Amino acid sequence: MGVTELPNELLDLSARADAVLARVLPPEDQPPAELHRAMRYAVLGGGKRLRPLLVYATGTTFGAPPDTLDAAAAAVEIIHAYSLVHDDLPAMDDDSLRRGRATCHVVFGEAMAILAGDALQALAFDVLAHDPTRDDPATHVEMLRVLAVACGSHGMAGGQAFDLAAIGRTLSPADLERMHVHKTGALIRASVRLGALAAGVRDAPTLDALERYGHAIGLAFQIRDDLLDIEGGTEQLGKTVGKDAAADKPTYPSVFGVAGSRTELARLAADALHAIEPLGASAAPLAALARFVVERQS
Amino acid sequence: MGVTELPNELLDLSARADAVLARVLPPEDQPPAELHRAMRYAVLGGGKRLRPLLVYATGTTFGAPPDTLDAAAAAVEIIHAYSLVHDDLPAMDDDSLRRGRATCHVVFGEAMAILAGDALQALAFDVLAHDPTRDDPATHVEMLRVLAVACGSHGMAGGQAFDLAAIGRTLSPADLERMHVHKTGALIRASVRLGALAAGVRDAPTLDALERYGHAIGLAFQIRDDLLDIEGGTEQLGKTVGKDAAADKPTYPSVFGVAGSRTELARLAADALHAIEPLGASAAPLAALARFVVERQS
Repeated sequence: MGVTELPNELLDLSARADAVLARVLPPEDQPPAELHRAMRYAVLGGGKRLRPLLVYATGTTFGAPPDTLDAAAAAVEIIHAYSLVHDDLPAMDDDSLRRGRATCHVVFGEAMAILAGDALQALAFDVLAHDPTRDDPATHVEMLRVLAVACGSHGMAGGQAFDLAAIGRTLSPADLERMHVHKTGALIRASVRLGALAAGVRDAPTLDALERYGHAIGLAFQIRDDLLDIEGGTEQLGKTVGKDAAADKPTYPSVFGVAGSRTELARLAADALHAIEPLGASAAPLAALARFVVERQS
Repeated sequence: MGVTELPNELLDLSARADAVLARVLPPEDQPPAELHRAMRYAVLGGGKRLRPLLVYATGTTFGAPPDTLDAAAAAVEIIHAYSLVHDDLPAMDDDSLRRGRATCHVVFGEAMAILAGDALQALAFDVLAHDPTRDDPATHVEMLRVLAVACGSHGMAGGQAFDLAAIGRTLSPADLERMHVHKTGALIRASVRLGALAAGVRDAPTLDALERYGHAIGLAFQIRDDLLDIEGGTEQLGKTVGKDAAADKPTYPSVFGVAGSRTELARLAADALHAIEPLGASAAPLAALARFVVERQS
């Protein structure tokens, strides 16, 4: 396989995530139909499915059958999709293009996009709370805790607030990292943690190694995103490029320079791979995902 | 006590809810501080605390100590507060006054208000998932399910979508009821159900009676709201009145007439009280709440 592409096993799991998402989202003809159409549009519009893949890759590394990972995989992607819908709103990033298509509020209107995001966040908890494969309710509650914390003001929503506060300001490297540790990192780390919990992983050293892997992957993902925003074309990325600089948003290249960002990306990639080394050959899907994250072209 | 006021026991529980909310909301000086300020502003701005009171009243009816109801009580009020923040946004109802104060987006800006609502929804699940008094994880998961369903597209968010679709249209009585069964009813019924689950209520006849009570209370609350929107003054209500008619929104008075709405209100009040009759004297707080809902002047 090429380093920039997903191995077949992960491609299969990405397709599996798509199928699960299509199943757990309410049907378009079920009232309120317009809301359900907006929700499906927001979630089923493609995307890399990185977060579900992290759930599947982590869970299968520890022997969990894929069907016991479906609910958590769907939940994290639904949260991700909701966050994009709200981030794209006119009052936020005001973006009209996402994954090569018009953004949710452009198609359904601003009010419906706000509601679709709200309903998607609730659906993520609904899907995870109704996971029929969970046979240990205490772990089940713990998984719901992990998801809630990752979404809140000390997680993803907090990162977005740091982002808002950063517009037009110069950030220190530490502040930039804090923003991304929350904004994209929290849900990525939660995806890894949910896969581990679903697989029954309990021992602290393994959970710590996975936390370190998730932390490195999360930041690496953001640096690659920032570099692509400079290097890529709108057609290739399916979203507006050069947008961050235009919005006067601090990025890794603006804080570390392009070369410095590449160095940091390489360091994080090495750290992610190093963290999962003790897990041996069974962690191959996690290693493949790490390589994909740092090398991806879109 | 007068029928329009809460008995002291419920006033104490309303104050208890305020204290719990002040405790579970992140402190204002904790980063991201502006987000935490917006969240606290949205939740701690007063309000009747009807939903927490329903949790406490139901739980204590079945002997649950108040501290075992705190997390659920806080969670439903946090969800309610988030829904108000988003409903008030310019793209939604565009309201600038709420509980006698400027609305969240007027004070903190639209982007921060969207984020505060998002973070509050996550916080509600966080608080309920971290309830330290739950000793039965299976019931704990069930409570999280109840909350998630009540918030989603088949609950509160769905009701808001029905509301959006109804603007400028004539609704049948059935459509109007469907809108409110979702928009305000879902969270009110969930509050009753959460109180019952927290108290360990399991038997179907009791849960059915409580469901009927919650259904009646939810609709009665909305009818009283619609009547107050016509009868009340802005000062008394602390929010803009006559707003529904101005926005061409269907209301109970516009569909049933004022006299017809009063008749429906009385019927629902009787139904709520009838539903809890079999529970005997211990359900006095639920009866007091029902009377408060139909007779309140603000």
